[in-house]
Amino acid sequence: MSLPQTNFRPPFNITRASHLVLTSRDLAKARDFYTEVIGLKVSDETAITIHLRGVEERAHHSLTLKKTKDEPECERIGFRMFEEDDLEKAKAHFDANGLPAKFVNVPFQGRTLHVTAPDGTPLEFCARMKMLPRLHTATHEHKGAAALRLDHFQVLVPDVTRSAAFHAALGFRVSDYYVADERIVGAFLYRKNNPHDLVFFERPGPRFHHAAYVVRSVPEAIRALEVAGNLGFADRLENGPGHHGQGHAFYVYLRDPDGHRIELTLDAVQMIDIDEEPVRHEVNAGAANLWGASPPRSWFEEATMFSGVKVAAQSAKPSASPADRARRARSG
Amino acid sequence: MSLPQTNFRPPFNITRASHLVLTSRDLAKARDFYTEVIGLKVSDETAITIHLRGVEERAHHSLTLKKTKDEPECERIGFRMFEEDDLEKAKAHFDANGLPAKFVNVPFQGRTLHVTAPDGTPLEFCARMKMLPRLHTATHEHKGAAALRLDHFQVLVPDVTRSAAFHAALGFRVSDYYVADERIVGAFLYRKNNPHDLVFFERPGPRFHHAAYVVRSVPEAIRALEVAGNLGFADRLENGPGHHGQGHAFYVYLRDPDGHRIELTLDAVQMIDIDEEPVRHEVNAGAANLWGASPPRSWFEEATMFSGVKVAAQSAKPSASPADRARRARSG
Amino acid sequence: MSLPQTNFRPPFNITRASHLVLTSRDLAKARDFYTEVIGLKVSDETAITIHLRGVEERAHHSLTLKKTKDEPECERIGFRMFEEDDLEKAKAHFDANGLPAKFVNVPFQGRTLHVTAPDGTPLEFCARMKMLPRLHTATHEHKGAAALRLDHFQVLVPDVTRSAAFHAALGFRVSDYYVADERIVGAFLYRKNNPHDLVFFERPGPRFHHAAYVVRSVPEAIRALEVAGNLGFADRLENGPGHHGQGHAFYVYLRDPDGHRIELTLDAVQMIDIDEEPVRHEVNAGAANLWGASPPRSWFEEATMFSGVKVAAQSAKPSASPADRARRARSG
Amino acid sequence: MSLPQTNFRPPFNITRASHLVLTSRDLAKARDFYTEVIGLKVSDETAITIHLRGVEERAHHSLTLKKTKDEPECERIGFRMFEEDDLEKAKAHFDANGLPAKFVNVPFQGRTLHVTAPDGTPLEFCARMKMLPRLHTATHEHKGAAALRLDHFQVLVPDVTRSAAFHAALGFRVSDYYVADERIVGAFLYRKNNPHDLVFFERPGPRFHHAAYVVRSVPEAIRALEVAGNLGFADRLENGPGHHGQGHAFYVYLRDPDGHRIELTLDAVQMIDIDEEPVRHEVNAGAANLWGASPPRSWFEEATMFSGVKVAAQSAKPSASPADRARRARSG
Repeated sequence: MSLPQTNFRPPFNITRASHLVLTSRDLAKARDFYTEVIGLKVSDETAITIHLRGVEERAHHSLTLKKTKDEPECERIGFRMFEEDDLEKAKAHFDANGLPAKFVNVPFQGRTLHVTAPDGTPLEFCARMKMLPRLHTATHEHKGAAALRLDHFQVLVPDVTRSAAFHAALGFRVSDYYVADERIVGAFLYRKNNPHDLVFFERPGPRFHHAAYVVRSVPEAIRALEVAGNLGFADRLENGPGHHGQGHAFYVYLRDPDGHRIELTLDAVQMIDIDEEPVRHEVNAGAANLWGASPPRSWFEEATMFSGVKVAAQSAKPSASPADRARRARSG
Repeated sequence: MSLPQTNFRPPFNITRASHLVLTSRDLAKARDFYTEVIGLKVSDETAITIHLRGVEERAHHSLTLKKTKDEPECERIGFRMFEEDDLEKAKAHFDANGLPAKFVNVPFQGRTLHVTAPDGTPLEFCARMKMLPRLHTATHEHKGAAALRLDHFQVLVPDVTRSAAFHAALGFRVSDYYVADERIVGAFLYRKNNPHDLVFFERPGPRFHHAAYVVRSVPEAIRALEVAGNLGFADRLENGPGHHGQGHAFYVYLRDPDGHRIELTLDAVQMIDIDEEPVRHEVNAGAANLWGASPPRSWFEEATMFSGVKVAAQSAKPSASPADRARRARSG
Repeated sequence: MSLPQTNFRPPFNITRASHLVLTSRDLAKARDFYTEVIGLKVSDETAITIHLRGVEERAHHSLTLKKTKDEPECERIGFRMFEEDDLEKAKAHFDANGLPAKFVNVPFQGRTLHVTAPDGTPLEFCARMKMLPRLHTATHEHKGAAALRLDHFQVLVPDVTRSAAFHAALGFRVSDYYVADERIVGAFLYRKNNPHDLVFFERPGPRFHHAAYVVRSVPEAIRALEVAGNLGFADRLENGPGHHGQGHAFYVYLRDPDGHRIELTLDAVQMIDIDEEPVRHEVNAGAANLWGASPPRSWFEEATMFSGVKVAAQSAKPSASPADRARRARSG
Repeated sequence: MSLPQTNFRPPFNITRASHLVLTSRDLAKARDFYTEVIGLKVSDETAITIHLRGVEERAHHSLTLKKTKDEPECERIGFRMFEEDDLEKAKAHFDANGLPAKFVNVPFQGRTLHVTAPDGTPLEFCARMKMLPRLHTATHEHKGAAALRLDHFQVLVPDVTRSAAFHAALGFRVSDYYVADERIVGAFLYRKNNPHDLVFFERPGPRFHHAAYVVRSVPEAIRALEVAGNLGFADRLENGPGHHGQGHAFYVYLRDPDGHRIELTLDAVQMIDIDEEPVRHEVNAGAANLWGASPPRSWFEEATMFSGVKVAAQSAKPSASPADRARRARSG
C-alpha cells in the first residue's frame, strides 16, 4: 500500500471545488428544498434549469438543477482553476495523457473544460463565472440553514488509490486517509485551505455520494431541520445530527426530493502549511464518530449515478461488507 | 374516556417538580457524567451521597445520588410546596384519604413529607431547602450542557387516567394528553408556569422514565454531546438530537452511567392563563416528531425501578405493542 | 427605609404582565420594526390599530399599536388575572380603597378592568383573551429576534417605595431592590415564576421606560440587530448588547420608530420558592454590568409619557444626578 | 490615486499571517487573559516567555508573549511561507532590493527570516513550526471564546499606498480599500483564502493596531465577555459587540492587560477566485457599521509601538481628523 504523492508543482492550478449539476424530476419541489431548507439563493431560473448559490458566494452558482424525466443523476462535478491560462494548460495535459478534454459553453461560466477522470467521474473546470453580490449579511433574507458556500464533494469509487493518484498528480494534497486490510479505502483530498475538496470512499462506482455546504454554526443546521419539519421535508433527514471523528465536523445529511445527498457541515479547520502530513486512520480500529447515532444503511449504500457513466465493482474483495466496514469510518 | 378535572381550589399548594433521588453503583463515574456532561454543580458530597443542582438553581439540590451495591433505582421524586403550612394540610389530606403520609428528616431540606401515590410512585414534598448562590452567570465555571434547572419527571404507569386523576385533584393542570383506542395513554401535568412538571405514559409501572433538565439553547445541548464524546460517554446518547411534535421542544436523551435517563430540553413555553385548555392528540394519527430519527427500542421499553415498588402490568390490553404505539407519540 | 411587605393572601389573583398599548405616528413603520426586527406576529390589523404577539404566545396580543397624530404615548400597561371572578374582587377592592375602577370593552379581550394606580400609572386587567395558535415552532416564518413573549414592564416613578407598596399589597413579591442614601430607588416585582413582571426606578414619573420581550438565546438578539442594520433601523439600537449585573440577563435595548423602548432579553431565572428573599443591592457600591458599554444618557433620561398622566418630580432630593446614580445600577 | 497592482507571479510564496510577538509587564495576568477569556492554549511556557495557539491550530504558536519591564510593545508580526526554499528566495529578493534580511533562530520554528518593511514594520517569515495536536474538538477543555486561529493583523501606517504596494509586489491581493480625498486611507490585503491577512489604515505609524482571532460563532464571542466579566476583565472590552459594514463580520475588540488590542471575529468569507476585484469604499460616503455603537476614541488613536521603531506622521494632511474620518470607516 502506498499513498499517492502530491505533485507540488502541478501542470495547472486548480483552486477549489466550486459547483455541480444535478437533475431533478420536480424542479419546483427541489427549489423549495434548496431555498427553504438549505437556504440557497436562486441566481437564475427558467422552466428547465435553476442556478443556486450559497448566501456568501459571489460566484453565480454552485448548484445547477436541470429538469429531467428520467432517473435523477449527477451530470458533473466542477472545480475552479485560477486563470484562463490554466484551462489551456489543462487541456494540453489531459490530451497528452490520453484523456480527451474539450471546451464547452456553459451559461454564466467563462470558458469551460470537460474531461472524464480515469475512474469515470465527469469533471468540469472553469476560471471565471458571472459575479453576483454576496448575501451573507442580508440576514433578513436568510432561510433555513442559510448555507454559506459549497465546500466539497464525496465520490464513491472502486479503487480509491487510483482515483486519489490521478488528483494528487494535479496538485491535490491528502489530509486524511483510511486503511483497511492494508488497502486505502478512503481519502480526503484538498486544494483550497481546508481538508477537503474531493473525498473518495471505496464502493462500486463512480457514484456521487454527496456535496457539502458550509453553515455558520450548529443553530443554522438545526434551523434547517426545524424548517424541514414544518414544510414537509422531515423525512429528508437521513443521518445526523452527529459529529464525525478524526477532528472533523458537526454534520447533518439530508436527501433532496430527488434523492441527491447534501451535507450541512461547519467551516472546517484551516489547512495550509507544508508541515501538514496526511493522517492515517485504521478503519478497523474504530474510526468512529465523536458522537451521534449510527448512520442508516442507505447512507452507506445509496448514491447518485453520474450521467451515462457505468458503475464498476470494487477492485479488491472486501473482507467485510462495505457497509459494515464503512459503518466504522463514517467519514465525509 | 374522560379527562380528569383539575381542582383549581386544591387542599394545599404544590408549586413545582423540584428534586429526585437516584442510586448509583459508581458514584465517581456518575459524578463525572453529571458534572462534566450535564454540567450540574456539586452542592455537597460524602463517600456515599452527592447532592447536585443546576447552575441556575438556588435550592441546594435537584438531584441526590446515593451509593448502592444493588440494581440502580429511583428512590423518590420530589415536589415543592409553597409554605410549611401546606405540608401540614397535605399530611391531613393524605391521611384522610387512606394514604399514610409521614414526616421525615432529609438533609438540607426543611420538613419533608413522604407519601406513596395510589399508582405506587414514591413522592416527597418540602417547602424549604438550604439556599446557595446561583451560578448561571459564572460562565467560566460552566461545563457540558451547563444545565440550568430541573424541569419535569416522566413516569410510566399502567393506568394514565388513574394516575393523572390523583394529581389533578391536587391542583395539577393538564396541558396535553394522548389518546389511543379512546383511552388516555399519555398526559402532561403541570403546576408551575410551563406545560410539564409530571408526565405519564402508559406502560407497565410505576417506573421512572426520565428527569428533564433545561438548557439555555441548542448549542449547550450539543456541547454536552461533544464533551460526552471526549470523555468516554458517547454511548450514553440514547435518543436525539430531535424535536418533539405538538409544539414541544428540542431534545436529547442520555442514559447516565447507571442507566437512569436524563433529558436535556430547552425552556418550554410559558403556560399560565385559564384560557389554556388541555390539548388532545391522537396517537394513531401520528403525533410524531417535528424532526429527528426514530427513538431506539430501549427508549420505549427501559426505565428505572422505584425502590421497593412492584411493577403492575397495563390495565388495558393495548391493540398495538406499547413500543410501536408510543413510537408514534414520542413525547416527553 | 423599609421594604414593602408582600401580601401572600392577596384579595385577587394577578398572574402576570401580559400586554400594553402604545400609540404610533406611523403604523406602517412601527409594523415593520416590530415584525421584521423584534419578530412579533400580527394577530389583527386595521387602518388604525395593530395587535401583535410573540411567536410563543397563544394570547391574541401582547402589544397593541394605535395610530395617533400626537406625541406617541403609552396608553396602559396590562396584567392578567387568573379568573373572571378575580376581576370582580379587584373592582370591589379598588373601589373600597378609593381607586375608582371601571369595566370596559376591549377588542379580543374578556371583561376588562381599568384602574389608575396611586402613582398615576394607568393599569388594565383581564382574565381572558382570544386564543391563537402558538408559532414558536413555525421556524420558517420567524423573523428578526423571533421574540417569544412579553416578559415585564419598567416604569419610572418619583417614589419607588410607594409604588412598590401598592403592588406588594396585591401579591407582588420583590426579587431585587436598589438602595441609595438609605432610600429604595429601584425595585423588581413579580407574580409569575421569574424575577420581574413590573420594575420601578426612581425618576420623575410615572413614565413608561420599556417593555421587555424574551428571546430564545443570544443569536436571536443579534439577528434582530443584523436585520435592523439591513432594514434601516440600525440607529434604533440604543443600549447593548451587554449583560446586567446581579445575576440578571443579557440585554439589548432598541427604540421603536416612535421612540418607545423595547428590551430583548433572555428567559430569566425561575423564581418560585418561598425561600427566595428580596436581594438588596447598594447602587453606590457599583451594582454594575457584568460586561457592556455604559448606557447612553438617553437610556436614563428618556421615557414615554402615559396618556393624559402628569409627571411628578422625584419625592426625595437625589444626592447625585439620577442619570449618574442610575448609571451605576443599569437595571431592568 | 492608483491602487497597487498585485504581482500574481511573486518571487516567493507567502501563504498566510501566522504569528506575532508581544511583550508584557505581567505575564501571569496576560496568561489569564489569553487562556481564560480568549481561550488560547499554552504550548510552552517559561518564566519569561509563553507560547500560545488557538484551539484549532496545529502550529506550535500564533502568539508569543515575552516578559518586559518596559513599555509593552509588538516585537514582530509573522507570516508563513510555503516551503523552506521560499525563504531563500525571499532573502535574495529582499537583499537585492535594499532590504537587508537575515536568518535567525526562533524556538519552535524552522529557519526564520527577519526583515524590516519599507514602512518600518518588523516582519518575520518561516515555513515550518513544531506541530501539536489540534484541540478544536476537545470541547471539554475549551475556555472563554475558544479562539480557533489567528486570522490577520492591522497595522497603522502613514502612507497606506506605499505599504500596500510593498506587499502587493510580494503577491498580496487587495480585497477592499478605503478612499478619502482621492487618497487610499485603508487597504485589506490577503494571501490565504479570505479577505485579510494584513490590513493597513492611515495614521501615524507604523504601529500595531490589532491581531484578530477567529471564533466559531457569536455565542463564543459573548462567552468571552461573560468570562471577562467574571474574572475582572470586564474593562478590557473596548469596542463592540458590533458588525462591520461592507460585508465584513461581527466583532469584539478587547485590550489585553498590557493594552495590546485583540479582535474576536467570525470566520470571514472565502475569497479565492481571480474574478474577485478589489472593492472601493468611500470613507466619506459613510462606510459605516451594519450595527453597533460608535467605537470609542481610544480605538482610533491608541496602538502598540513596534519595538525600536520610530513612528512617522501621516504623509498627507487629512482634511478631517483621523479619528473622525476613521470613525466613519471602522474597519478591520
